[in-house]
Amino acid sequence: MTEICFIGANGHQRNIINEARKQPDTYRVTGFSPGAPGEDINGLRHSAEGFDAREYPDAEAMLGALKPDIAVVCSYFSHNAAISRYALEKNISVICEKPLAINLQEYNDLYDAAANSRAKIAAMLTYRYNPRFQAAKKAVTQGKIGAVRLMQAQKSYKLGVRPDFYRRRETYGSTLLWVGIHAIDWLAWLSGGKFVSVYARHSNLENMGHGELESSAAAEFTMENEVIATACCDYYRPDGAPTHGDDRIRIAGTKGVIEIMREKAVLLDSDGESELTPELTVDSLTDFVGYMRGEIPLLTSEESFYATKAALLATQSAESGGVVAFD
Amino acid sequence: MTEICFIGANGHQRNIINEARKQPDTYRVTGFSPGAPGEDINGLRHSAEGFDAREYPDAEAMLGALKPDIAVVCSYFSHNAAISRYALEKNISVICEKPLAINLQEYNDLYDAAANSRAKIAAMLTYRYNPRFQAAKKAVTQGKIGAVRLMQAQKSYKLGVRPDFYRRRETYGSTLLWVGIHAIDWLAWLSGGKFVSVYARHSNLENMGHGELESSAAAEFTMENEVIATACCDYYRPDGAPTHGDDRIRIAGTKGVIEIMREKAVLLDSDGESELTPELTVDSLTDFVGYMRGEIPLLTSEESFYATKAALLATQSAESGGVVAFD
Repeated sequence: MTEICFIGANGHQRNIINEARKQPDTYRVTGFSPGAPGEDINGLRHSAEGFDAREYPDAEAMLGALKPDIAVVCSYFSHNAAISRYALEKNISVICEKPLAINLQEYNDLYDAAANSRAKIAAMLTYRYNPRFQAAKKAVTQGKIGAVRLMQAQKSYKLGVRPDFYRRRETYGSTLLWVGIHAIDWLAWLSGGKFVSVYARHSNLENMGHGELESSAAAEFTMENEVIATACCDYYRPDGAPTHGDDRIRIAGTKGVIEIMREKAVLLDSDGESELTPELTVDSLTDFVGYMRGEIPLLTSEESFYATKAALLATQSAESGGVVAFD
Repeated sequence: MTEICFIGANGHQRNIINEARKQPDTYRVTGFSPGAPGEDINGLRHSAEGFDAREYPDAEAMLGALKPDIAVVCSYFSHNAAISRYALEKNISVICEKPLAINLQEYNDLYDAAANSRAKIAAMLTYRYNPRFQAAKKAVTQGKIGAVRLMQAQKSYKLGVRPDFYRRRETYGSTLLWVGIHAIDWLAWLSGGKFVSVYARHSNLENMGHGELESSAAAEFTMENEVIATACCDYYRPDGAPTHGDDRIRIAGTKGVIEIMREKAVLLDSDGESELTPELTVDSLTDFVGYMRGEIPLLTSEESFYATKAALLATQSAESGGVVAFD
């Protein structure tokens, strides 16, 4: 039996609760709490109904009392790194909302805590479990498009009305960190390459009253072997659009092009266009528990940190206006 | 009667010849020549059949002898600026293959020559005459998407086997100058905004034996009002693709998104998706002749220079690795 506690209600915690609910003989949700003083966890309280879970006023009290196998950390983005570190230091594994941290100091502290812990940590880079993205990964790995040379990724969301903590950099981080990180993860994951440098810009103009939240951003990465990649994100998807998000990536290689768009992954090569067959995947909770047991997962701690670091450096570039080199 | 001479056979000169051929009472093609010593103009010779056009060994001799109204300049990209300048100095108007110049010195010299000439010059920014792009321009101007905030443009071509002069920077310029310039022009034209700075990268790795030719490139522009825009171009369109080029632009605004892709221009707004009706346009020769007569054209000299300058600065950034500011 794997015991899970939930901390905070401002992320994708419901995905994990729903995954746990499907396997009651495997998972027990034993507790939940806010991650920050005053955090509204009504949604979490509701999601946890039907589990024999106890509510705590704060994460530290809960983790000390219940000693779960996994803490799911989904509080304000500014609070997730410290909570995750606290859990790792107690050798409790962590599934944390992405990004793992919203500044480099907390990133480094968390990275060190993970290195010194017997527990694992993964960010909620949910596209790792998407059958179309897995199909693209498989096709690239099989050499279907030859050597990857140019990638263009896009995340576009409906803005709607976001909670207050999105409106302050101090609690939100940045749109490159919250939205862009997915696209940034695709670039490294799908190509198998490493980042060399990044140049990024972002703007919080015309953000419909959302304070400091950036409504548009673009990052241009140079990768190993002069691979070039862009990641654009915005909150301008119109209310009239059929889906919340417009996720895309185009991967151009020496033998062909793979493109994910409108819920399809398509290969274009010398034979013309063909849709890639979606790859069956495990859910993120199953993957993570296997990882805790020593199995090879679809998403590692190292990859979770890498995407976070890249999004942090992109944000740093957007703030400074200059090119930022990776280590 | 408008008299036209053709110089060089390494650009889109055939488009203009075909436009002239449709109106024999309006246009006379009086001569043609190579633009550079040794330039193969067999294609031009063939295209000029049926016109009473005389072949000359070089442009200077031809322009001096025939004094046409228009010189169409399509030689090696390295030669076009000097030939165009020669024509402008003789008050002969010029339709020149884009870019107007492949380095800043020649750009400045040509710009000065245009300012001091009674004649006009336009670059072959052919999308100005594309009914879908005109439809997008109209919709943006009408405020259908509100304020433009983020743009992503793409040019992808089949590489095939290119002539030798493409393989040397000295004669080719760069892929940002030859291919990217279209996408760069879209950004300024369709948004109506000005560039503030550019960061670009390009690579000539994996270019199928094409020497110095860059097979991939990406430029990220900051524009007025913190508008962000990217232009990506590559030569990786597979042979099996249904068309030579994969031209795209996505324009995200505060009220909607316009996207041109796969020969369609689509508006997405609060009412959902709708295809924009293609706008009837004149051909580029008719437009230019009207411009010479003082009419307002679809493409001005100033806009032709602006796109060239932006592509030159993007290339400068890609070479230097740093951000380049516009004047």
